[in-house]
Amino acid sequence: MNPINATIITIGDELLIGQVIDTNSAYIAQALNKIGVPVLNRIAVGDNKDAIISALDAAAIKSNIVIITGGLGPTADDITKPLLNAYFGGKIVVHQPSLDHITYIFETIHKRPMIDRNRKQAEVPDVCEVLFNEKGTAPGMLFKKDKVYYFSLPGVPHEMRWLTDNHVIPTIKKDFTPSFICHRTLLTAGIGESFLAELIANFENDLPTHIKLAYLPNIGMVRLRLTGSGKDEKSIENEVAAQFEQLKLAVNDYLVTDSDEPMEVVVGNLLKQRNQTVATAESCTGGFIGHLLSKNAGSSQFYTGGVISYDNRIKTEFLDVSTEILHTVGAVSKEAVEQMALAVREKMNTDYAISVSGIMGPTGQTAEKPLGMVWVGVANKEKVVSKVFYLRFDRLRNIEVTANQAINLLRLLIINKI
Amino acid sequence: MNPINATIITIGDELLIGQVIDTNSAYIAQALNKIGVPVLNRIAVGDNKDAIISALDAAAIKSNIVIITGGLGPTADDITKPLLNAYFGGKIVVHQPSLDHITYIFETIHKRPMIDRNRKQAEVPDVCEVLFNEKGTAPGMLFKKDKVYYFSLPGVPHEMRWLTDNHVIPTIKKDFTPSFICHRTLLTAGIGESFLAELIANFENDLPTHIKLAYLPNIGMVRLRLTGSGKDEKSIENEVAAQFEQLKLAVNDYLVTDSDEPMEVVVGNLLKQRNQTVATAESCTGGFIGHLLSKNAGSSQFYTGGVISYDNRIKTEFLDVSTEILHTVGAVSKEAVEQMALAVREKMNTDYAISVSGIMGPTGQTAEKPLGMVWVGVANKEKVVSKVFYLRFDRLRNIEVTANQAINLLRLLIINKI
Repeated sequence: MNPINATIITIGDELLIGQVIDTNSAYIAQALNKIGVPVLNRIAVGDNKDAIISALDAAAIKSNIVIITGGLGPTADDITKPLLNAYFGGKIVVHQPSLDHITYIFETIHKRPMIDRNRKQAEVPDVCEVLFNEKGTAPGMLFKKDKVYYFSLPGVPHEMRWLTDNHVIPTIKKDFTPSFICHRTLLTAGIGESFLAELIANFENDLPTHIKLAYLPNIGMVRLRLTGSGKDEKSIENEVAAQFEQLKLAVNDYLVTDSDEPMEVVVGNLLKQRNQTVATAESCTGGFIGHLLSKNAGSSQFYTGGVISYDNRIKTEFLDVSTEILHTVGAVSKEAVEQMALAVREKMNTDYAISVSGIMGPTGQTAEKPLGMVWVGVANKEKVVSKVFYLRFDRLRNIEVTANQAINLLRLLIINKI
Repeated sequence: MNPINATIITIGDELLIGQVIDTNSAYIAQALNKIGVPVLNRIAVGDNKDAIISALDAAAIKSNIVIITGGLGPTADDITKPLLNAYFGGKIVVHQPSLDHITYIFETIHKRPMIDRNRKQAEVPDVCEVLFNEKGTAPGMLFKKDKVYYFSLPGVPHEMRWLTDNHVIPTIKKDFTPSFICHRTLLTAGIGESFLAELIANFENDLPTHIKLAYLPNIGMVRLRLTGSGKDEKSIENEVAAQFEQLKLAVNDYLVTDSDEPMEVVVGNLLKQRNQTVATAESCTGGFIGHLLSKNAGSSQFYTGGVISYDNRIKTEFLDVSTEILHTVGAVSKEAVEQMALAVREKMNTDYAISVSGIMGPTGQTAEKPLGMVWVGVANKEKVVSKVFYLRFDRLRNIEVTANQAINLLRLLIINKI
């Protein structure tokens, strides 16, 4: 028998024509890894009988856990349920608790009459264990064959997540005894991937073979991940922890956080610990910094609000950027972002402010101000600091990198590094 | 020989532990589909020699085009290049144009000394055609074996995209003659998936077998896609177009757009056509509506700016929401969002305004105001209209759905449907 591992199969033509991005697999992979089940493969196939069957056959050869998502909806292109029923040789029966739940959703929540198509959602193969879906109308299913567990989950992300957390993971923990995997991740900023690799070359060479180091560069920062695996939970955890301390020392000058959390969470936590607040003045990022600062629960403790001064007129009327500044040095300038940060902090009466103004592309550049040129400013009661970046990505990536660099600059101001 | 099709292999442990979401595959799949190359499978494997080789072996059995991304970086965990070199029996040589380009990037752009690790990026197997990478330091590679084309691309998204557009697609168009695939997609709002399916049941039953209908529900809206395939480009295009007109008629009351574009682009285009502008006043969405309206090129033509009034104090001080409203009906109310829309429209002097205030979770609910309750308002010079929604997703999804519903409400106001 292979060591325990999983294959994730996602079903849907939309995945193969690139119409949607698969976020479900990442969620499932993360949940499995946490309990020590490595994912061997992730495979996406279309709404196509032969392709699905061939993926199921292949998965069962290498994995003892197969997670299937998608194709359980109420419409004709959803073929997963009849296909699994035939694959495992069952017959279709009505699952009464699911029918009651669907009836409740339509009659009590939607207040709409239920149609046959909805009722059919409660039908399941009699050879599966039904995974009751509290969050939606399509029940999950568990099939067992030749010691392989096949979980079938709906593709709607919040339903899939609920079923993963409440059925899939508890079942696997109960019925399998995975070998232990331990990950530790840290985030660096201000140093490129190859220079970072030089910096920690000795550390990397000295790593034992059962602990792996991975570089995950993204939006102007590099994440480093150590992964160890072994039979004894305590000893592998201690060993990875000891190596992780070494790694932290080696990258100390560039270390943002030793947790696997994004920049905005790091900064949000710094502000919460200090009982301080921040406001934003955004031009080229158009609200994205506000979104990052407010997307996590508890952000109202530190995020007060902001002005999106997309049009220059708003910079003048709401943030007192003088027409003189606009006419001489322009909106993408040190003077403009510093004034924006000072004004929004004062007007919103916060401890800190972040401001940005730049040229995100694909047009808008001038001879002096190239595409991707962006000024970022941060301010507190005592001072205002600004920095210019020259980015060379596409528009959306430029927005993301700018937002992260701006939040990082605020971090440096909070911890007195600038 | 199989009909022409492709397999996409993405390499990286981060994909199997769920640390990053794979957006590259979607981009490549879309580009291949546009030129009539269906994607048979997408498979993600770890930074693991055996897993990569087994994926390559399996891909070559079913596909004549294999696209591999990832694992070409300058660090030790990047094993794709030596592995492909061994797999195709080559030896490593320096590619001078790539070395010149890397030198240029470091000396002229980064203004930093180049290290050995960077120089190594210019090394390639002598059995590949080098795909010159204008956007980065890792060259793409094309291997040909037994009539199968293997393209290896770096995983950095903007580099991968540039290589796909400028090398992969032109090469495939030149050397293969794919059968033609035609997609047409429309977007509906205001009707659930199962009710939509009832509405178009007759249409769906009458579809010829070589044209497929797919339902793509997402963030409170449903996208419908027709896909036809055949040997003759003109005839399949005409046939899909005729069916698509039927489908548009059938869903007419709920039709948002007959192009494959998101809601914010539809509304942006409506505003641009009319030479009109919009401002935003966001509480619970924290800047996300501003981000959606400004993320696409050309948005400065219609998006003026906004106020993120996350804290109630900002609603009062910047948007004139009276303390009486806050103390009686509260910030999540018809009165509050209508005042917010009126105030931001007037203060920013725009044609339209959007406002939102709600309880995104996971906490903040009261007896009268449940989690997921959100008020959305839109205004023009003549009137203000508001609507309440009760969402039942997680925080991030609630933010996304709210933003889309708010932009849809603006659409209805612009086209005089409310």
